[in-house]
Amino acid sequence: MRQEDPVAPTAAAAPDQLRDAMRHAVALAARGLGSTSPNPVVGCVILDAHGTVVGEGFHERAGGPHAEVHALNAAGDKARGGTALVTLEPCNHTGRTGPCARALIKAGIARVVYAVSDPNPTATGGAQTLRNAGIDVEAGLLEDEARAGNIAWLTAVKTGRPYVTWKYAATLDGRIAAADGTSRWISSAESRADVHRLRAESDAVVVGSGTMRADDPHLAVRGIDGAVQPLRVVIDTEAAAVRPGARILDDAAPTLIAVAEDATTDLRHADVLRLPRAARGLDIQALLDALYARGVRSVLLEGGPTLAGAFVAAGAVDRVIGYLAPVLLGAGQAALADAGISTITDALRLDVTETVRIGPDLRITAALSPKES
Amino acid sequence: MRQEDPVAPTAAAAPDQLRDAMRHAVALAARGLGSTSPNPVVGCVILDAHGTVVGEGFHERAGGPHAEVHALNAAGDKARGGTALVTLEPCNHTGRTGPCARALIKAGIARVVYAVSDPNPTATGGAQTLRNAGIDVEAGLLEDEARAGNIAWLTAVKTGRPYVTWKYAATLDGRIAAADGTSRWISSAESRADVHRLRAESDAVVVGSGTMRADDPHLAVRGIDGAVQPLRVVIDTEAAAVRPGARILDDAAPTLIAVAEDATTDLRHADVLRLPRAARGLDIQALLDALYARGVRSVLLEGGPTLAGAFVAAGAVDRVIGYLAPVLLGAGQAALADAGISTITDALRLDVTETVRIGPDLRITAALSPKES
Repeated sequence: MRQEDPVAPTAAAAPDQLRDAMRHAVALAARGLGSTSPNPVVGCVILDAHGTVVGEGFHERAGGPHAEVHALNAAGDKARGGTALVTLEPCNHTGRTGPCARALIKAGIARVVYAVSDPNPTATGGAQTLRNAGIDVEAGLLEDEARAGNIAWLTAVKTGRPYVTWKYAATLDGRIAAADGTSRWISSAESRADVHRLRAESDAVVVGSGTMRADDPHLAVRGIDGAVQPLRVVIDTEAAAVRPGARILDDAAPTLIAVAEDATTDLRHADVLRLPRAARGLDIQALLDALYARGVRSVLLEGGPTLAGAFVAAGAVDRVIGYLAPVLLGAGQAALADAGISTITDALRLDVTETVRIGPDLRITAALSPKES
Repeated sequence: MRQEDPVAPTAAAAPDQLRDAMRHAVALAARGLGSTSPNPVVGCVILDAHGTVVGEGFHERAGGPHAEVHALNAAGDKARGGTALVTLEPCNHTGRTGPCARALIKAGIARVVYAVSDPNPTATGGAQTLRNAGIDVEAGLLEDEARAGNIAWLTAVKTGRPYVTWKYAATLDGRIAAADGTSRWISSAESRADVHRLRAESDAVVVGSGTMRADDPHLAVRGIDGAVQPLRVVIDTEAAAVRPGARILDDAAPTLIAVAEDATTDLRHADVLRLPRAARGLDIQALLDALYARGVRSVLLEGGPTLAGAFVAAGAVDRVIGYLAPVLLGAGQAALADAGISTITDALRLDVTETVRIGPDLRITAALSPKES
């Protein structure tokens, strides 16, 4: 006959408490967007044996402690016999910070509930390690929400290239400028502020030579406290669009100029990346490979119609975020130029995943179906 | 000393009961959309002296009883000492059905609460007549909702022309077809079904010769029980696009062919309207005047980019309903062609009033600000 333990090692949280805690963990994870690559974003909440929240944390930056470690540190002894809710399967490998599975066992956690299994072959196996230590392990709670919150990293791990979000601002009739080229401002101040949040959540921001020449953009994040600046990338095939003194060359954020292998450039102090040419411009896949090798897992494409068309043609757009202004023009440049699609059956079909009013505008997010990305 | 009346003539409904009843009246009114012109849509709910709903009704069709009469008939004697909630100020004129103010007085109603004042000079004065009869009258409850539900009629009364809603279906990048002209189906079956509801709520549906030639559209309402068919209108300036045997010439709904004054037509059995020419096509204002004279208060413009551009250029679009498919093309015809707008400050600026998912698509409604329409 088995002797009863006076402190029951089974964690007693109710289903509602588990869901609420996981939802909070997903929200915590999102706070890491833009600063954890090449790692995923992860959130963790610790409940004690009675189901009370006693610790929480998220992975804040690559090289820093994992979410579980932050949360266990906050919980201290109260973690013993409790439940850990984690948005991603706890890691099993000894990287810069030691495996989280080991930390959970050591803290006396009785039950681990995670949302998404780790697809990364070097990290997987955490669940098995936990089970081997006698911990009750469940997967899949709020999996869809957690997956959506980590979509860039999850897709990048699967495809081996950064997850690309194309952002544009257009009128209801799909124009980014009037017939005479005027466009200030098609979208509202609120939408423009929202773009800074998108940049802060991205590892890199990409524009082409057209945008470079037309706007001399700065591309750094402004107005968001503590934001990690993205890598600013200009695709300047002929090495002719980025001139000395360009705003993008200041020290507000790192900058990378991608040029053709055979281009000559006089930009001495900029980080220059030489890439093969494609039929039009540079080889998009080669660019994405190079960015991936630098640890970039999410790219915000802020280029104009031509560059966006080249990305779509290369099969390199995973998600679209459109800021639609309730404005009609009837003439002027369209948001997306030639993407190599000439007939309706070849159209790029996405799923609408979110619509939000941003000031007077509408922000529409549409992504490849999970089965297609 | 005043003697107490055993049945108190003051209606005792609580504020919440009044709001709920008015909200229901607004919903009832909407059931008349498309069948009451040239009259407005109106809904009415009768509460007895205790605040209980004892009758309801709406204006179902021009020439039929007004909403108040339906509701009073349903309430019978229970209306005595009660409250009538009406979406529009009760009429005071003796038309085909007698004034509603008189009917409310005769039924012993103690209190009338209406949402929107009647802007129609021939009907106004109902509130004063009620007050003169000793009835407690209040205006403005849920005015915005009631106004939105009657926006076509209210705007038409003010402007003297039908309220025009331009409906289109396009990709996220604003295309209505691919580069090779293929477009079946950019929008989903759900969106196409929703368009039949829009038609049923409209007095007339308008297309141009381009759509006529390309699609041979039918334009009648299908799949909605009891729908009143709209007037089908083709703008066929040269009298060359509508040929004998066109689907629009069947007897599913009335049809009007608008042609230039000097055009020759061999359509013997169709209703032909001759209008002056404009710089491009026909004079849009003359068309709208002619439709107004026929009792049309709401027009659904289903024309292609060229006709829509002409309507926008004529200042004749009050509202836009776009069915956006989460699809990218990068080439192909834009949803709106030349509208006489060449610079951003001349853009037509609207307010987003609603966004709804329709199957995989997004339906966006944007309208002129009330101050501008």
